[in-house]
Amino acid sequence: MKILLTNDDGVYAEGLCALYNALSGEHEVYIVAPEAERSAVGHAITIHYPLRVKEIRRGKHFWGYAVSGTPADCVKLALYEIVGPVDLVVSGINRGANVGINVLYSGTVSAATEARILGYPAIAVSIDAYEDIDYCFAGYFVHQFIRHYGKVIKDYNLCLNINFPHLNPHDIKGVKLVRQSTARLKEIFEKRVDLHGKVYYWQGAEEHTETEVDTDVVALKEGYITITPIQFDLTSYSDLDLLIKENLFASISF
Amino acid sequence: MKILLTNDDGVYAEGLCALYNALSGEHEVYIVAPEAERSAVGHAITIHYPLRVKEIRRGKHFWGYAVSGTPADCVKLALYEIVGPVDLVVSGINRGANVGINVLYSGTVSAATEARILGYPAIAVSIDAYEDIDYCFAGYFVHQFIRHYGKVIKDYNLCLNINFPHLNPHDIKGVKLVRQSTARLKEIFEKRVDLHGKVYYWQGAEEHTETEVDTDVVALKEGYITITPIQFDLTSYSDLDLLIKENLFASISF
Repeated sequence: MKILLTNDDGVYAEGLCALYNALSGEHEVYIVAPEAERSAVGHAITIHYPLRVKEIRRGKHFWGYAVSGTPADCVKLALYEIVGPVDLVVSGINRGANVGINVLYSGTVSAATEARILGYPAIAVSIDAYEDIDYCFAGYFVHQFIRHYGKVIKDYNLCLNINFPHLNPHDIKGVKLVRQSTARLKEIFEKRVDLHGKVYYWQGAEEHTETEVDTDVVALKEGYITITPIQFDLTSYSDLDLLIKENLFASISF
Repeated sequence: MKILLTNDDGVYAEGLCALYNALSGEHEVYIVAPEAERSAVGHAITIHYPLRVKEIRRGKHFWGYAVSGTPADCVKLALYEIVGPVDLVVSGINRGANVGINVLYSGTVSAATEARILGYPAIAVSIDAYEDIDYCFAGYFVHQFIRHYGKVIKDYNLCLNINFPHLNPHDIKGVKLVRQSTARLKEIFEKRVDLHGKVYYWQGAEEHTETEVDTDVVALKEGYITITPIQFDLTSYSDLDLLIKENLFASISF
């Protein structure tokens, strides 16, 4: 297959390299990734600045293209201008899980979503760890997964968000198809004072409060590799149905 | 009501001022908005830099808080630290429509979505125009809308994406409850060469290709004010059902 690789940790990230190593033996692989880390950018795109593209070499060999934009920019630019049509887009392997509400903030997943918007099947890959990360097994799994299910993913034009627990492979309990958790995060704002006496805030979200077992958050915590198919229609159909059926905005006039 | 105002065009934007003017007579209104324009940032949040908050005055009077972050940052920081709980979050009035796929890229809508994530009802407001914009009528409409339906919006904890056509109020055909269009945009990348001979790209998306009449894109084009209820679960339930029922990933092993 012709595969586009991207990520939000930047073109030099270890997780991207792990995907490249795992996939380039069997597939025609292209790298188009942000020139630097672009975490938590959500589905941002760059429209007020021009996008620059740099060819990156590793040693003597051409490695890929670094783009001065977001993951979504990379996918658009790659599919329209740099690489052209591909069979599959793979984004990652991200340092840190992308489950629950965090999916909304995720540059890694937004790259896969962007691919789906443009009509291409895609996989986003993340590991629930920030240190001592073994990208190797996740890369191996993705390779096997694509080997076995690449046709299914293409045929159904799927966009899959895959997350790996931070476990030794033999401790992983299995693979679960789950929905995205929508439970709130426990958010943290820490107020600090700088050396000039001025206030600033650090933002963080520490804990998922989800308890439902059919969600990505819980399954990942339980030690499963989670797979969640992703779409990009933000319409709340339940609210829309309610508003129409109950005629709740009945007398809108101006 | 206690209302938080924000936007993605920045704390000094005319559209924000129009909302303030329309709502502050009847409601307790707080402004927490990005210090500068943050368009097309999607649902980005700022986790690698500290957030700064500046008190902004207009003439002698306190106007609001400018935050060195994205619209989603503003909403989080406002509700957790600066303003505290509110009855409603209103984001806008945005220069440029936020319908169809563009909803994914929209900072304006992401502020409303963030409010909903945090459990607050919200309205995102945009006008389908970039020049000669009459914010006044949209402000007036939002005021009337909240006066009539504020209770419904609160009771059902709705997140509404409202878009105004670029028409004189008497030419507007009415109000339509519609779904978000998921049809592809006609994307444009323009390749240019800078003064140093280096290539760069401008990104733009010009046209919606949508034709279905129950969508925001078409209703807005036809001259209606569109209202779309928004949610934040990106799970593709149709794909999830399919994958489970058909057992398409039957033999995943490693």
